[in-house]
Amino acid sequence: MQRVVNSVFHEWAAVLGASNVITSREALKSAETATFATSQQVPAILRPATREEVQECLRIANRFNVPVYPISSGKNWGYGSRVPAAGACALLDLGRMGRILDFDEQLAYVTVEPGVTQKQLYEYLKTRKSKLWMDATGSSPDCSLIGNTVERGFGHTPYGDHFAHVCGLEIVLPNGEVVETGFSRFAGAKAGDSYRWGVGPSIDGLFSQSNLGIVTRMTIWLMPAPAHFQAFYFSCNRDEDLASVVEALRPLRLNGTLRSSAHIANDYKVLSSLQQYPWEETGGQTPLEPSAMAAFRKKGSFGCWSGSGALYGTRRQVAEARRLVRKALRGKVAKLQFLDDRTLKLASRFAKPFGWFTGWDLSRTLELVRPTYGLMKGIPTNVPAASTYWRKRTPPPADPNPDRDGCGLLWCSPVAPMEGGHALAICEIAQRTLLEFGFEPMISVTLLTERSLSCVISIAYDRSILGEDKKAMECHHALHDRLMQEGYHSYRLGIQSMDGLHGETGYNRLLQAIKGVCDPNDILAPGRYSGKAIGKRSKVSTATPAIQDVESLPAVTAAMCERVP
Amino acid sequence: MQRVVNSVFHEWAAVLGASNVITSREALKSAETATFATSQQVPAILRPATREEVQECLRIANRFNVPVYPISSGKNWGYGSRVPAAGACALLDLGRMGRILDFDEQLAYVTVEPGVTQKQLYEYLKTRKSKLWMDATGSSPDCSLIGNTVERGFGHTPYGDHFAHVCGLEIVLPNGEVVETGFSRFAGAKAGDSYRWGVGPSIDGLFSQSNLGIVTRMTIWLMPAPAHFQAFYFSCNRDEDLASVVEALRPLRLNGTLRSSAHIANDYKVLSSLQQYPWEETGGQTPLEPSAMAAFRKKGSFGCWSGSGALYGTRRQVAEARRLVRKALRGKVAKLQFLDDRTLKLASRFAKPFGWFTGWDLSRTLELVRPTYGLMKGIPTNVPAASTYWRKRTPPPADPNPDRDGCGLLWCSPVAPMEGGHALAICEIAQRTLLEFGFEPMISVTLLTERSLSCVISIAYDRSILGEDKKAMECHHALHDRLMQEGYHSYRLGIQSMDGLHGETGYNRLLQAIKGVCDPNDILAPGRYSGKAIGKRSKVSTATPAIQDVESLPAVTAAMCERVP
Repeated sequence: MQRVVNSVFHEWAAVLGASNVITSREALKSAETATFATSQQVPAILRPATREEVQECLRIANRFNVPVYPISSGKNWGYGSRVPAAGACALLDLGRMGRILDFDEQLAYVTVEPGVTQKQLYEYLKTRKSKLWMDATGSSPDCSLIGNTVERGFGHTPYGDHFAHVCGLEIVLPNGEVVETGFSRFAGAKAGDSYRWGVGPSIDGLFSQSNLGIVTRMTIWLMPAPAHFQAFYFSCNRDEDLASVVEALRPLRLNGTLRSSAHIANDYKVLSSLQQYPWEETGGQTPLEPSAMAAFRKKGSFGCWSGSGALYGTRRQVAEARRLVRKALRGKVAKLQFLDDRTLKLASRFAKPFGWFTGWDLSRTLELVRPTYGLMKGIPTNVPAASTYWRKRTPPPADPNPDRDGCGLLWCSPVAPMEGGHALAICEIAQRTLLEFGFEPMISVTLLTERSLSCVISIAYDRSILGEDKKAMECHHALHDRLMQEGYHSYRLGIQSMDGLHGETGYNRLLQAIKGVCDPNDILAPGRYSGKAIGKRSKVSTATPAIQDVESLPAVTAAMCERVP
Repeated sequence: MQRVVNSVFHEWAAVLGASNVITSREALKSAETATFATSQQVPAILRPATREEVQECLRIANRFNVPVYPISSGKNWGYGSRVPAAGACALLDLGRMGRILDFDEQLAYVTVEPGVTQKQLYEYLKTRKSKLWMDATGSSPDCSLIGNTVERGFGHTPYGDHFAHVCGLEIVLPNGEVVETGFSRFAGAKAGDSYRWGVGPSIDGLFSQSNLGIVTRMTIWLMPAPAHFQAFYFSCNRDEDLASVVEALRPLRLNGTLRSSAHIANDYKVLSSLQQYPWEETGGQTPLEPSAMAAFRKKGSFGCWSGSGALYGTRRQVAEARRLVRKALRGKVAKLQFLDDRTLKLASRFAKPFGWFTGWDLSRTLELVRPTYGLMKGIPTNVPAASTYWRKRTPPPADPNPDRDGCGLLWCSPVAPMEGGHALAICEIAQRTLLEFGFEPMISVTLLTERSLSCVISIAYDRSILGEDKKAMECHHALHDRLMQEGYHSYRLGIQSMDGLHGETGYNRLLQAIKGVCDPNDILAPGRYSGKAIGKRSKVSTATPAIQDVESLPAVTAAMCERVP
């Protein structure tokens, strides 16, 4: 058996080159580290540079019955980072596939490989003086566009529902076969990058939140930069105001006046983006109780809820949208402020004098708004990542990396119809549950689509404190279960929640039948959104592997060997 | 074998009641009749009333290895009507499943069964004094909403891309199992009707243009009626103007100013909507040559291209959109007219005097615009169906039914990126090919999505004239092939073109593997978008079946028997 494992590494190395089959203890340990406790071990990291190499890696994986787990940039923070859903998977790191394959300014699209990052595309467009905007998610500038899109992540421009704005996928199936979707499957087809459905069954969706294939190419639609852009910011002074704001904005989302998601954060969320946990003021006590929040709200000049959104169009389109937003929010918010590039520049210059006259600490507000302002223009930002250091005792570094720095983060992201009552109900469950477990309920409510909202609830903690990993996970599971009991299912799951999808439904039976024909050996990302409980393979020993030393194969390799026929 | 076939009918009758297993010669003959020549025979029509009955019908079909072909309203005119893609399929007519199951005015959706028609939903909304608009396709008020949507049909409002505006599908798989999609698969889920993706792989697309399952329930999103609506109409005097119009409107589609598809029809298409073939003026000669069109254009006051589109929003949003449309089309069109409910009313009243002053025959124009005007507000219309009588010698009846009345119609609907050059290239191929075969090239160009257009090319003829069926089909195949050679693939196929999808692609292999696990006996709509050549089952004899008479089982039943193990 040792020889078999040895052989699989050699075969991979023969395809990728030895330097692209990484088995150094340090690298593996880093890859095994998420923002919460995991026990899955990674025997090797494979770094293919081309689609053909991906195919070959999968063929080898099948021959040796060794599972692999693809990541693009591995920045799936709060949901599992680079850690496989089940144990004993070799990581298939697609980061080297970083080419921008096609770009069309006129038809407004770009075709990319999985390694292309947000920052890379942003720079690409800037260099070309393109009149197009990308959509950015608030994760990290180094996060993969494809990775985020196949997870159905979202951003803050009108193209924020990422998976709804892509087409022409190239997919490598677990058996190594290549499938192209939409019209792209026909050689010489003209509309492969501009029309989503193609002809015949549309299979794109199968490869989102999925372990059925690896997306190695994707066309991403871009939006034309509007002639005019204006952001708006509002705040509410009472918890229950959230409901009326959601009710007020829904008609504007539905009728197309608000073309992008509005984003409403609670006080905890805002505080965590402004500073770390107030250790001094609380004398080291956690959690920060709601009763204590009032002082921080006052100090930071923010309300119970702080919202933002943006208007895109000609000057007159934006002016009319502004009028409608103002009208809708009248009497429902305590403050409403519109900002554009000009006023933002002015405000920065006159922040101090503005404060003397109005009593409003504008510079503080600007600090808060700048990253979201950019996101609404599709500009990637590092700032939200810094807030994962909330409970740490040392300040966030210039290059935040929550995996590396022991920042605890678990996300839960339930979806509800866009109605005020649902938003309140989710927030009540979140607040009650997180405080019960000793964490701060950081919540953002995103008016995600025309008729649905998503709450992203963060459990942020310090992994270096003994017992916190366990407590946070218990809190997450309690939260997840309570929300599901009320019918609020998450739009996306962390690797710790995949088991929750199993059950004897027609959907699961169909999914598993499809998995059976695509991946009879279950070698691709076993357990990931698979609709079945993760089996014994995920329960590997916690002993430390040292794969380089083939003579002393450790537990993880033994676990791999269990599968070898 | 006769006993087996007899038994399958009896089993179906036991489930549905004898009156819902139709085998009368007249009914079958009608079901076997499309708007072009077909040889597929239909041994029976099954009319289930519930999802459970659909499941039972499929289980029986599997037991007896007898294929079934689902239709909703069967109004797939120009693409095959009710006729199965392969022969010897019993029709599963879902018309009795006509319930509107759920409706939410606030979240703007309706949940329907396959038998619910456009007209039914329109009346439903009107009765409730709903502030919501449906999207309507130009086919027939009696056409099924689900039927059109799963074929990925389109309409003329901002919700015109039908399949992009639905969620929460309930599907009966060929094996009789039920699958629910999105969050709907979780009992008690709150966002099943308002959020599309759910969690895990999104499988909705699999069941569009597909033979993998029968959609028995669907939630359709509705748009809020805008405060103000304005349609615009334009015309161009030169063929090549199409290119500049497409170029001028693309930026407005891309930036969201034009939220719905604009629609541009050529002179032939317009003439066919105003009158039947000018038999007298041409002395009975066909086709109507381009050189002869000029006179008709002049007489009818229309140009080489007649376009329409609509603006939705507040009065100011519409006013700004109007300014932008006007600016974009300046110098590119000969006429540009904006119409709303008030001006339409005025125009109707003053059509005559208007003509005296301007020389423009407004009443003629109004006749032309009224149905499209309604469609852009989601109002179903019968008018386009009348144009299928183009080459008939008798006028269209009050209840047009092209299948029944021998109206020949074949559609071809290639998609291209939204660029003027592509639009011209397709039109050139269409015009050349149709004239070559003796038909009028009726073409409409729809600016379907933000960056793609579809041309719908009609081959309209009189089926009662000997040889025309054959000539029209040859013309269609030549057109289809020429377009594909240039990379212009159709967004949708008629039953006569399904074979063209086969080929050794990864997509087809995957599709067939999925079909294999969903439908091992290939009993559901064999050959429909299946990606493989339709086998011998479609080649049934053309002898007339008389299923009632079980003692003299005809060819079609014999063909069915071939499959019985």
